[in-house]
Amino acid sequence: MMTPEDRKQLIERYEAGYREVVNSLEGFHADQLTAHPLDGKWSACEIVQHLADSEMNSAIRLRRLLAEDRPVIHAYDEADYAIKLRYNEREIGPALEALRSARTTTAQLLSLMSEEDWKREGWHPESGFYTPELWLKIYAAHAHNHAAQIVRLKEAIGSES
Amino acid sequence: MMTPEDRKQLIERYEAGYREVVNSLEGFHADQLTAHPLDGKWSACEIVQHLADSEMNSAIRLRRLLAEDRPVIHAYDEADYAIKLRYNEREIGPALEALRSARTTTAQLLSLMSEEDWKREGWHPESGFYTPELWLKIYAAHAHNHAAQIVRLKEAIGSES
Amino acid sequence: MMTPEDRKQLIERYEAGYREVVNSLEGFHADQLTAHPLDGKWSACEIVQHLADSEMNSAIRLRRLLAEDRPVIHAYDEADYAIKLRYNEREIGPALEALRSARTTTAQLLSLMSEEDWKREGWHPESGFYTPELWLKIYAAHAHNHAAQIVRLKEAIGSES
Amino acid sequence: MMTPEDRKQLIERYEAGYREVVNSLEGFHADQLTAHPLDGKWSACEIVQHLADSEMNSAIRLRRLLAEDRPVIHAYDEADYAIKLRYNEREIGPALEALRSARTTTAQLLSLMSEEDWKREGWHPESGFYTPELWLKIYAAHAHNHAAQIVRLKEAIGSES
Repeated sequence: MMTPEDRKQLIERYEAGYREVVNSLEGFHADQLTAHPLDGKWSACEIVQHLADSEMNSAIRLRRLLAEDRPVIHAYDEADYAIKLRYNEREIGPALEALRSARTTTAQLLSLMSEEDWKREGWHPESGFYTPELWLKIYAAHAHNHAAQIVRLKEAIGSES
Repeated sequence: MMTPEDRKQLIERYEAGYREVVNSLEGFHADQLTAHPLDGKWSACEIVQHLADSEMNSAIRLRRLLAEDRPVIHAYDEADYAIKLRYNEREIGPALEALRSARTTTAQLLSLMSEEDWKREGWHPESGFYTPELWLKIYAAHAHNHAAQIVRLKEAIGSES
Repeated sequence: MMTPEDRKQLIERYEAGYREVVNSLEGFHADQLTAHPLDGKWSACEIVQHLADSEMNSAIRLRRLLAEDRPVIHAYDEADYAIKLRYNEREIGPALEALRSARTTTAQLLSLMSEEDWKREGWHPESGFYTPELWLKIYAAHAHNHAAQIVRLKEAIGSES
Repeated sequence: MMTPEDRKQLIERYEAGYREVVNSLEGFHADQLTAHPLDGKWSACEIVQHLADSEMNSAIRLRRLLAEDRPVIHAYDEADYAIKLRYNEREIGPALEALRSARTTTAQLLSLMSEEDWKREGWHPESGFYTPELWLKIYAAHAHNHAAQIVRLKEAIGSES
């Protein structure tokens, strides 16, 4: 188990994730958002659309952990989503808003959780045993990781030059 | 099957749902948002929190219908969510944003769907056969129905008097 | 919908399936049961073990269709089962008994089903909409098909020469 | 973890379960098999039908644990099955055979399991974490418990007097 202090730090990082993504997009040439400068990697647009879908999903996952008994988390193929849900053809504005609000509304829940809530248990078909703490560890890092990926794309494109 | 025109009208209604909810909240006394003037009915705050969770869920449902083969939709107990996720203790601002962005990002998808996409099939454990058209019929009405419920609460409270 | 007469004929075929498999094994050299004379095809032993697992599963599937609401049928990878459950290392006696009794106990149920029962609905993750009639069509043929496969193996081996 | 010796003893008990049930039925008046002498308890016929369904299911559960990754076990309402699958209207012969062969074919698997196999993991929606050892503990006792229940019914009926 984490200490309350461990969790507090991860929750702060979770809350800072949206801002990190917005910062990573600063100076990104608008006409390069859908470019693929890094072989086999998503474009910035695809990353942001992924963040929207993934984080609405993660919001639901935490709710299911808290409100349902021993929920089985739904896993999906994110590479497949990117193609079939046409991530690279959709403006990023609504996706950024979805990322932000999935996190602000979920942060409310995190702040209300009791010690009992943190002990709840579920199952992920690909990683097995799943808890609110595992959830927190994953999503505290998720937006930051993708923001760093956007920065690497920006550098590859030379947006800042 | 619906005609493209049928669908277009329902999509417009879907897109108008957020505004309808915001309008219903106009003139609602802030200190009455968590009141229960109608026996056994949710407060305005609970309705808005429900809209956030339900519509992030509905966003995921449409994505799963489009990107996965014959998905089984996850059903949940919304009355239970309201209590366990402490709907009445949470500020409604983030929930309203979640409702709005779940719809704006999903509206992008609806506008890109081909005739083939509209024929996709899934399964709902409580209602059985589930399609994008059934999804659209349900969610075109969902926010409007809850907005009307908020108006009834407002009238019961006499907020406007 | 099938007529009661259609169903009656398929149920008779279902009941005859075990005997068909036993007949197909007549004259099969015991030391050839695990042989693979046909490239990429199961041995007779593997076929019989598959029949045991598949038909216990099918017995459960019909029970779930009749006793649960809108069940989602569990699908599995039968080629994978053959390897991981070591089909070719296990004596076929118990498997034949499992095939026989899965069918005799299920035949009791089939004979008791009302018209309402035949209209029940479920979902198969790979084939979609699933009903007792579809079940009956599949399993009326299942053992017979595998019996024919065993006969082809016997001919390939030249067991009868 | 159990020792191999612990497991060996439970496997032997599992293998002895069918015989225990047959013994419990000895001297049971045939015309009392469907009687309900104990308030709210199943008849002997219902118990035997339950054993058939439950043990075909348990056979599948162990196969899924061994052949699938992190399977989610299907749970069902056994009291509901007893009514909807008309346990008390069906001759017990085929059910006894189904119990026997589910166990003999599964005992083959148990004898082939490696130490790695015993460490596999799954999830039960009502009891959570689920392993082959938990499976073995449950089913080593299952038939014996129901045999004891049949003996109590026999005594209540006074079959032996």
